Amino acid sequence: MSKVYNAEILSVGTEILLGHTTNTDAQDISLMLSEIGINVKYHTVVGDNPQRLSDCIEIAKGRADIIISTGGLGPTCDDLTKQTLARSFGLELEMNDHERECLYDYLTNRGYSKEMTENNLQQAMLPVGCTVFHNDWGTAPGCAFEKDGTIVIMMPGPPKECNAMFRTCAMPYLRSLSDEQIVSHAVHIFGQSESAIDQLFRDEMNAMTNPTMAPYAKESDCLLQITAKAGSVEEAEKMMQPVIEHVCSVLGDVVFGIDIECVEERVMQLLKEKNMTFSAAESCTGGELAKRFTDMPGASEFFLGGVTTYTNGAKSKLLGIDPALIEEKGAVSFEVAKEMAERVRELIGTDMGVGVTGLAGPDGDGVHEVGTVFVALATADGTFVRELHVGDRRTRSYIRRVSGNYVFDMMRRYMQGLEVIND
Amino acid sequence: MSKVYNAEILSVGTEILLGHTTNTDAQDISLMLSEIGINVKYHTVVGDNPQRLSDCIEIAKGRADIIISTGGLGPTCDDLTKQTLARSFGLELEMNDHERECLYDYLTNRGYSKEMTENNLQQAMLPVGCTVFHNDWGTAPGCAFEKDGTIVIMMPGPPKECNAMFRTCAMPYLRSLSDEQIVSHAVHIFGQSESAIDQLFRDEMNAMTNPTMAPYAKESDCLLQITAKAGSVEEAEKMMQPVIEHVCSVLGDVVFGIDIECVEERVMQLLKEKNMTFSAAESCTGGELAKRFTDMPGASEFFLGGVTTYTNGAKSKLLGIDPALIEEKGAVSFEVAKEMAERVRELIGTDMGVGVTGLAGPDGDGVHEVGTVFVALATADGTFVRELHVGDRRTRSYIRRVSGNYVFDMMRRYMQGLEVIND
Repeated sequence: MSKVYNAEILSVGTEILLGHTTNTDAQDISLMLSEIGINVKYHTVVGDNPQRLSDCIEIAKGRADIIISTGGLGPTCDDLTKQTLARSFGLELEMNDHERECLYDYLTNRGYSKEMTENNLQQAMLPVGCTVFHNDWGTAPGCAFEKDGTIVIMMPGPPKECNAMFRTCAMPYLRSLSDEQIVSHAVHIFGQSESAIDQLFRDEMNAMTNPTMAPYAKESDCLLQITAKAGSVEEAEKMMQPVIEHVCSVLGDVVFGIDIECVEERVMQLLKEKNMTFSAAESCTGGELAKRFTDMPGASEFFLGGVTTYTNGAKSKLLGIDPALIEEKGAVSFEVAKEMAERVRELIGTDMGVGVTGLAGPDGDGVHEVGTVFVALATADGTFVRELHVGDRRTRSYIRRVSGNYVFDMMRRYMQGLEVIND
Repeated sequence: MSKVYNAEILSVGTEILLGHTTNTDAQDISLMLSEIGINVKYHTVVGDNPQRLSDCIEIAKGRADIIISTGGLGPTCDDLTKQTLARSFGLELEMNDHERECLYDYLTNRGYSKEMTENNLQQAMLPVGCTVFHNDWGTAPGCAFEKDGTIVIMMPGPPKECNAMFRTCAMPYLRSLSDEQIVSHAVHIFGQSESAIDQLFRDEMNAMTNPTMAPYAKESDCLLQITAKAGSVEEAEKMMQPVIEHVCSVLGDVVFGIDIECVEERVMQLLKEKNMTFSAAESCTGGELAKRFTDMPGASEFFLGGVTTYTNGAKSKLLGIDPALIEEKGAVSFEVAKEMAERVRELIGTDMGVGVTGLAGPDGDGVHEVGTVFVALATADGTFVRELHVGDRRTRSYIRRVSGNYVFDMMRRYMQGLEVIND
């Protein structure tokens, strides 16, 4: 039987404890570790304080096989992770000549002053005997060593550096340690709540040991995470396949994808498959729909353009909507959403056009409650309009985001040939 | 001398350890605690496992005066924070009748089934003698108690609920414990790096004890955090004032605001002050500029509309830009950015128009390197255009976001009557 490694991610940085920085490093590393069957049991964040860091290292030694630190490798005075971790494991630091040269070249090319450069070269001091992880994305190198049965890995703090170095250097290092593989898949669901899913599968979930299954709520969607462990990836995959098939057949068309980040990603796949395009006219979402879709590389093939008609004037000027209609029905109305979708589709000449108008709050319009949103999808087969009540106790950003999810899910259902709700 | 409280935030949730969820609760709570002079010394994340949670509680007891848990209060089977925390402090749980009724009303109004409702009512079981925090933003109530010299606060996991309940219920509870006040202000800077700021003020910062000062890097901007402790808020404010004035006078017009979330917030203030409006034509930012501005309530008074002209066709159709110009100069060009800004300004009839076109990657266009972005600001005093090189090793989302920051900072400088770079 293979050893199961338990990891603790120890993030060092007062800025995280002050709330100035989100600890995305711990999240990124956790996601990567789950790919290779290493269980993350704890995340700890501690400030730039040698004594408290040292105490945290002692605790981590007692409960984890792998300690992964993030942050505190840079040249500024409060960067002390390396010194403290080395001391805790009885190791000295020594100058790594190769890293020193790389740093020197990098810094002088960037025109740093001499004093600045000397200061920065301290980053090349590394624990004796460690495996060095060269930093191709910044300056401070990372490293790994094994001592007294514990594996220690040190990553730089800046998220981009940490993420890239972990993927490129630490993952191969760790992969060689384990001969058990964990594989995990997420079944993504839109239109059914986490508690409904929990009810539906609770008995099965309780009875399962390998694979396991657990539901997680997201904003307006949720997911079922299915995880299997086996000697090989292939074997683990084989164990999961029937479970995934079963779950999908019970849930039906509310499943929008497997291992997919968000519903717009599924929409992009379908647009590609069906060779279709779309455009968007946004009022209350104010560009967020376009922003979300264009977050994905390659979006320009399918999303040809959009308008943010945040004011009534813009609805008329940009889309040619009759001001009298807006006057009569109100900007937040079934009719205006429909016109927005149809006119942007025509204006930009796309297969589908979407329109969103509603009240994201915090102020109301005296007619509708906050959270009332009309979403429309104009297609060659006619226009579908839905009236949403996202919740009057919700935040502006929640209402905007969830409205977008509904729009994307309407597009998904239309392209998959499923029924699209039309109020 | 007032007691200084040290807090530990203990987040319970396997989904965080799996990397599915970002631990924003810990960040939100940390930010709020710093307002009232409570030092956050540790963040810990542990999974939905009673033994490990119990161990973490014991560690937290030994090093923190205040333990704040997040997550694990809901009705699903793996929600065990309340039970475990109560047991660790030798308390029983009892049904809280008022919370039970509130939950019952809420759930029956939402049409939950009877069985479902019974299940959910377990959320009203609370530690004997605790202060109950009613959940106006969701279902699970939070609570607080003091036992054996430790203050324990339990918050629900969903970020919106946690944030609102902490602000509304836990903050007043905690504020009453301390008679020392901490006040902190952030001086926000655009156009100078953290390391330049660090160099500039390093000697002063090292010599300061109260107030203290520290630089923090954000994406393309940075901030200087100045913090003072005193017996009253007024006294602390008085101590900080000369420091803030000094810093602002040394830094000059790169300071875009004090205690401001982001540069667009400053832009909104200035638009209000100057009674001005703007519109946006976005290519590579794909709606993100509009989205960011309309994230702020009241944006519609100043941002009248925008277009996302993600494709060349849309640039011509929506803005009337001559396809020959795009053909000749390329979509990513000084000239196209300028036209976009000028034409959207004219089309929507606003005081300013902004245009952004560039390469957010990952793919290049064979001409420019990824991260090349042209940003333009059209005004009654002419059009300003800047060529940015945001970095070819940067992510798509970074390039898009930072480009937006530059656009907003151009608007700020123009409205403040400062020099606007024009390449």
